[in-house]
Amino acid sequence: MNSSQVQVKVLPPAEVRPEHFEVVDVELPEPGPGEVLVRNTWTSVDPGLRLRLRADAPEGYFAAFPVGQAMDGIFTVGVVEASQADAFPVGSTVWHSYGWRTHAIVAADEVAMNGIANLRVLDAERAPAQAYLGPLGAMGLTAYAGLHVIDALDARGTIWVSAAAGAVGSLVCQIARLTGLRVVASAGTDEKVAWLRDVVGVDAAFNWRERPLGESLGEVAPEGLDFYFDGVGGDHLEAALGAMNNGGRLALCGSISEYEGEPVGPRNLFLATSKNLTLRGYRGSAHLDLLEEMQDRLGGWLADGRLTYRESVYDGIRSAPVALADMMAGRTTGKTLVRI
Amino acid sequence: MNSSQVQVKVLPPAEVRPEHFEVVDVELPEPGPGEVLVRNTWTSVDPGLRLRLRADAPEGYFAAFPVGQAMDGIFTVGVVEASQADAFPVGSTVWHSYGWRTHAIVAADEVAMNGIANLRVLDAERAPAQAYLGPLGAMGLTAYAGLHVIDALDARGTIWVSAAAGAVGSLVCQIARLTGLRVVASAGTDEKVAWLRDVVGVDAAFNWRERPLGESLGEVAPEGLDFYFDGVGGDHLEAALGAMNNGGRLALCGSISEYEGEPVGPRNLFLATSKNLTLRGYRGSAHLDLLEEMQDRLGGWLADGRLTYRESVYDGIRSAPVALADMMAGRTTGKTLVRI
Repeated sequence: MNSSQVQVKVLPPAEVRPEHFEVVDVELPEPGPGEVLVRNTWTSVDPGLRLRLRADAPEGYFAAFPVGQAMDGIFTVGVVEASQADAFPVGSTVWHSYGWRTHAIVAADEVAMNGIANLRVLDAERAPAQAYLGPLGAMGLTAYAGLHVIDALDARGTIWVSAAAGAVGSLVCQIARLTGLRVVASAGTDEKVAWLRDVVGVDAAFNWRERPLGESLGEVAPEGLDFYFDGVGGDHLEAALGAMNNGGRLALCGSISEYEGEPVGPRNLFLATSKNLTLRGYRGSAHLDLLEEMQDRLGGWLADGRLTYRESVYDGIRSAPVALADMMAGRTTGKTLVRI
Repeated sequence: MNSSQVQVKVLPPAEVRPEHFEVVDVELPEPGPGEVLVRNTWTSVDPGLRLRLRADAPEGYFAAFPVGQAMDGIFTVGVVEASQADAFPVGSTVWHSYGWRTHAIVAADEVAMNGIANLRVLDAERAPAQAYLGPLGAMGLTAYAGLHVIDALDARGTIWVSAAAGAVGSLVCQIARLTGLRVVASAGTDEKVAWLRDVVGVDAAFNWRERPLGESLGEVAPEGLDFYFDGVGGDHLEAALGAMNNGGRLALCGSISEYEGEPVGPRNLFLATSKNLTLRGYRGSAHLDLLEEMQDRLGGWLADGRLTYRESVYDGIRSAPVALADMMAGRTTGKTLVRI
């Protein structure tokens, strides 16, 4: 059984470039007892991967991808092609974590981090399979859990969502709006801003490159911010601290601005004290208990057309490194996917 | 009626020095209807004053003290010497906010920030009057509220208290220990460390000047930290982020290291995301609803000798600027007070 997989050739010293990876052909054995052979159809490209391309991956996060081996832990969907496990008959659509490769042998009883099953059959009726890599998968969970941890679900007030045209950000905007918040959103191109305003339907949107963040926030949220969803860090987090109302709550979902190069902490963190703010770091994977609730709510909104999302699709396993580099450089919109 | 008061001569450009203040003699009138004349006996010296000596006082905090006027808003106790208000007879021991002066005319019905009465009679039986400037006053409330906002009261686990020999820190250590936590404490001199270990009775204490904070924490809390009480900021906050266990909670009570000079944000704030941490900024004054509960619990521990505290006492109103400079430079221990 011939397959192809992406391997790390060298950990990127600064920005990710396609030449930091190579695509290697690998011979796979037949699945053994209790195993299935999955032909992967879609695989995920997400910002968290960048952290696993650092020799000094932050404590508590996954270890760096080993050089010269298959990259593990990347969410993927596929179709079972050969099975020695009764619960996963040939032809089932499944979800597992052996991505960035064309085929994978997966043990049916393998347990992923946090104790959930790694291999799971998907309900491909509810939504297209790749939606489980986006709004109904890790992205949806990250968005939903972020609002949950700051008690912003079904709340009232104003939220600023940064990196709002991203896969997680655009879901946060919509969940927030659909559950009652006033949403102001920022992104880095006029096209993204227009999409947020016209399609996603936020209350206000601005291009953060245009002028100082504090000025833009003062205009779109003169009443101040009650909530902030941070997917950027750095200057965005500083601006949020400046604009928060007393008692405000901030969800820290990962700081894409700090994945490459030296991180800079917010120099105005004292405002957390003076304004009684709560900064809540979290990872979606710590809130798997919310997965079904999220899939029910978001699945319903998807079905009745109230939830929109965008995909940047790259074709073929060889395009995965390019997709990651493009995403890190801000050249993709919405969920970045590779169709294999 | 002759009185003396401390005024700001010039806002300190860097470290506070006594020459930034001057003591001015002021003639006071007789108290009018509804007013009392208080002879102040003790006045407070606390780190928050430093923030009001900056032209760029952080948003949400009090404004800077005006140059050449009496400094307002500083907690003080005294004795009523003349009264035109029935609720405050001559001889009562009272608490109000017109400190850093020998005498004050106070309106009986004046409302302080947050809507509480500014002038209040103290129960001088329960504890010496100056205790209401320390463990039973703003210090006690700040300590108690800090543990409250991170759900650490009556909890189990390990807490690191920084600036632990300070007025607030040493109370935090004791409240945490008396309500069930394992307490590790840090301070900047061996004498303070010995006091914390031998008198305050923490489980472990170390001198942060001796070696890298991460090393010391690894030794005194090999099981990691569940809670952190931050009165320092800067490198201490970074070390705490590094040592926190998953799901840990941090109370940010003001960053004395950043009151003078350029603040530096924690460069490892990403750990808040990877370890699902909560950083909770707060001001004691936002939790006046806890004042009675705190005075009941701490008053009881004081009465039965389970709560200890230290005072650094300076004599005479003219010594107030020296007291503040000494406190900011780390030369005082426990609550810094001026006996007038």
